[in-house]
Amino acid sequence: MVKHGDEIGMKMVDFKQMVYLPDDDRYAPVDEVKPGVRTADISGTQVRDDYLAKGKALPEWFSRPAVAAILNATSPPKFRQGLTIWFTGLSGSGKSTVAHALVERLAEYGRNVSLLDGDEIRTHLSKGLGFSKEDRDTNIHRVGYVAGLVAQHGGTTLCAVISPYRAPRDHARKLSKGNFVEVFCDTPLDVCESRDVKGLYAKARNAVADGKPMGFTGVDDPYEAPLSPEVTIDTSKLSVGDCVHAIIAKLLEIGYILPHGHQPA
Amino acid sequence: MVKHGDEIGMKMVDFKQMVYLPDDDRYAPVDEVKPGVRTADISGTQVRDDYLAKGKALPEWFSRPAVAAILNATSPPKFRQGLTIWFTGLSGSGKSTVAHALVERLAEYGRNVSLLDGDEIRTHLSKGLGFSKEDRDTNIHRVGYVAGLVAQHGGTTLCAVISPYRAPRDHARKLSKGNFVEVFCDTPLDVCESRDVKGLYAKARNAVADGKPMGFTGVDDPYEAPLSPEVTIDTSKLSVGDCVHAIIAKLLEIGYILPHGHQPA
Repeated sequence: MVKHGDEIGMKMVDFKQMVYLPDDDRYAPVDEVKPGVRTADISGTQVRDDYLAKGKALPEWFSRPAVAAILNATSPPKFRQGLTIWFTGLSGSGKSTVAHALVERLAEYGRNVSLLDGDEIRTHLSKGLGFSKEDRDTNIHRVGYVAGLVAQHGGTTLCAVISPYRAPRDHARKLSKGNFVEVFCDTPLDVCESRDVKGLYAKARNAVADGKPMGFTGVDDPYEAPLSPEVTIDTSKLSVGDCVHAIIAKLLEIGYILPHGHQPA
Repeated sequence: MVKHGDEIGMKMVDFKQMVYLPDDDRYAPVDEVKPGVRTADISGTQVRDDYLAKGKALPEWFSRPAVAAILNATSPPKFRQGLTIWFTGLSGSGKSTVAHALVERLAEYGRNVSLLDGDEIRTHLSKGLGFSKEDRDTNIHRVGYVAGLVAQHGGTTLCAVISPYRAPRDHARKLSKGNFVEVFCDTPLDVCESRDVKGLYAKARNAVADGKPMGFTGVDDPYEAPLSPEVTIDTSKLSVGDCVHAIIAKLLEIGYILPHGHQPA
């Protein structure tokens, strides 16, 4: 451009990065600011995660109020958006127990929640499906679809399903348009197996011993741990209350709920 | 009470029905009001259907503002509540066509809508179910469950399914806690059959002729018409636009949407 400027009759106008000087209430090119002078700027990521996602007003020096209002309307804060909280982990890892305890806490933060756990899913959604890998994938897809539908309408669903495979879980995340918090219940297999509330591990071990493996997660079927879950809990080390606390802390951090006493505008 | 008053030492205090006199701004016993004097009263049904359901403030002469505010909070207006619109009727009766046209119109009234029609249901919800009566009932139950879940979170679902039996439809109404508008697509069988977009009627007639009835609604399986649908349309007589208009009129009447220009408070 500079090289061919004369030839094409166009000149580059150098655009310098500007920065705000709060003490002078004016902008200045970043390379003209003297050392020691206070400056302020907000990055694109900060606009998205620290202001819009949390419903915080952009300062007037950064964005005209009329523009800020349009940004807020097209990008509602996280606490006004739908949400899917997805508990994944071995049978007996504490998914349903922690999810049940979380329901009440979320109501205190103004999030009314529907819980899709094994019982609810068997009663209302999974009839007709068996235990083949395909049918189990269909089941997880369906739970993810329903949670995504509720999230689209601003609602919150807690899903507590073993969901051993990574791909269907990642698909569920997409169906909720990213308003998705994955809670990995990383309780060790031996602890889960020693609990064996429903006697399923014993049944699965016997089936293997009898040469009729039933494809039970952790025994004769793999569990693919999440690569970057939002929250990891281990109910062999933490109490249910502490697990709930860890999830609440993450939801506050992302902005899906507001600290008590902070009423949404 | 009057008879045994002396014996038990209690006297009946006669309570007279009171009525408001707007011109005097006072209450008076209804039997003391002179003929020709203006009176005002609001029945319990009117409180529920004409005020609370429509988000209209109760007048101060009827209810103290503090009480009215509590009534409004516990009984949000219909336009803030979830809603299931359930299209039922024969194959080819126009359910899906009218439902699709309604989606856009409802968005104009601020209701964002998810549409559960045959395609969506087959893709996401009904895999594993067959055509037995039991499986078809399970399918309708499931659609009703999902719509009810969305409605609980304040969302709107349009369901377009033949749903030939009355009991599963009535169950779906319960799952949406009564926030349910049943649209009966009452297009005559011969018109539906002459359309036969998917060739299903021809297939069903052939199956009957071959002595292998497939249980197709209207051919060799009954359709139980709704007893009191909120809206009845006949796409052999009304245009799609007119059908949509009829549904919109009913939604305005019940208060699920507000007339254009009426912003919710």
